[in-house]
Amino acid sequence: MVGGGAANIPDDHPRAASLRTREQMKKAVEDGLVHATGLIAHGRGEAFDYLLGEASPPEAQAAIHEAAFIIRAAHRPALSLNGNVVALAARQCVELAAAWPALRLEVNLFHRTPDRVARLVTVMEGSGAPPGSVLGNDPDARIPGLSSDRARCCAAGIGTADVVVVPLEDGDRCQALKAMGKTVVTVDLNPLSRTAQAADVTIVDELTRVMPRLAAALRHPPARRAAFDNGANLAAVKRRMAQRLGA
Amino acid sequence: MVGGGAANIPDDHPRAASLRTREQMKKAVEDGLVHATGLIAHGRGEAFDYLLGEASPPEAQAAIHEAAFIIRAAHRPALSLNGNVVALAARQCVELAAAWPALRLEVNLFHRTPDRVARLVTVMEGSGAPPGSVLGNDPDARIPGLSSDRARCCAAGIGTADVVVVPLEDGDRCQALKAMGKTVVTVDLNPLSRTAQAADVTIVDELTRVMPRLAAALRHPPARRAAFDNGANLAAVKRRMAQRLGA
Repeated sequence: MVGGGAANIPDDHPRAASLRTREQMKKAVEDGLVHATGLIAHGRGEAFDYLLGEASPPEAQAAIHEAAFIIRAAHRPALSLNGNVVALAARQCVELAAAWPALRLEVNLFHRTPDRVARLVTVMEGSGAPPGSVLGNDPDARIPGLSSDRARCCAAGIGTADVVVVPLEDGDRCQALKAMGKTVVTVDLNPLSRTAQAADVTIVDELTRVMPRLAAALRHPPARRAAFDNGANLAAVKRRMAQRLGA
Repeated sequence: MVGGGAANIPDDHPRAASLRTREQMKKAVEDGLVHATGLIAHGRGEAFDYLLGEASPPEAQAAIHEAAFIIRAAHRPALSLNGNVVALAARQCVELAAAWPALRLEVNLFHRTPDRVARLVTVMEGSGAPPGSVLGNDPDARIPGLSSDRARCCAAGIGTADVVVVPLEDGDRCQALKAMGKTVVTVDLNPLSRTAQAADVTIVDELTRVMPRLAAALRHPPARRAAFDNGANLAAVKRRMAQRLGA
């Protein structure tokens, strides 16, 4: 890892705020929370967020409302946490679980190592999660169809969940959860990704802008559940991004 | 830095090739060649390349031809190398300089540290650059308008160049080079970036697909120089990406 930290970003740089978020992600890598390739995933998200004008589209709010109805109706909802999610939104995830206490939190990693799972659980507890409430350290179940360590999960969390919220997730994992018969909600800035396509509800928006609004919708859902078509919602977001490209 | 390397990528993953390139970039960070935030930049490029269908558009070939004419006509052309450029295309950069020996190579970094400059020069020499031919270790000039260490460059390279090729470059630096009166050629997958907008010739394509074709065009340029309008070329690429979004 090479030097040149946040202190080295000139205040007059036109994208100083974005550069500082990047330095925050870099630090999460150094702290062993985020896999280095998680930074690449973050960059992909930045590109699509740029096509949203770095603002939440109305389609995301519609998807958030639908997600809130699904999570509230679930018997065993779970929120899957990876390194990027914890690095960007640990406290917001704790607040989401506070808004809907049935939601189980589980650290579940694409690049799984026991050490990194433990570090992420510790960060979640340091961010306000009740001690012992965050699953992941002792996987005792498997997600069929995934190779090796990627399949490991906890029976008390994702393993027996009927609804799984998987933000910033790999397409394989999303498809494997769907194949288990689970209802999948994702947050993904790329409307073309396999995850976005495979999920039942795809919130195309930036994670830290989504989480407080999802928590609010869980506490106080709209009186009436609007009609929701995930494919049509994705198509509308794609048109919005295309307009930004000047087409 | 956490574990889980290339050996851990399942062969059956639908994006195994892309994941392996990511692991190569991760290793470049571990080796002190690429700044961690360079991985985020790589991810942004991946997203826009996805919108190109991971294939070179005809607009890129037109820009490559124009770039070749400009470089061939230059008195003092220079190629600016940063960590991502060297990690992805060190040997291709050497081959570019072999195709047009007037092209001076200079390591020039946004997150400059003397150690990283030295490592990148060493990689370039290990990739076939003649010893001593790659500038950067002893900066003796400045690019006006950039803060602190970012301004440092070599008089024998970028400092006195009339044409500068700056692939994968920060917008500030591109604009500062333009303000010095230099002609700027860039390779940037984001057609909306400040770099893409500010450059005289913007090749919107993936670096390793561009470099061999630019070398070929330097050796054997088309017989006739076609009319070229960088703004119109960018607009055409943006329309192409917008189509991929289904607009």
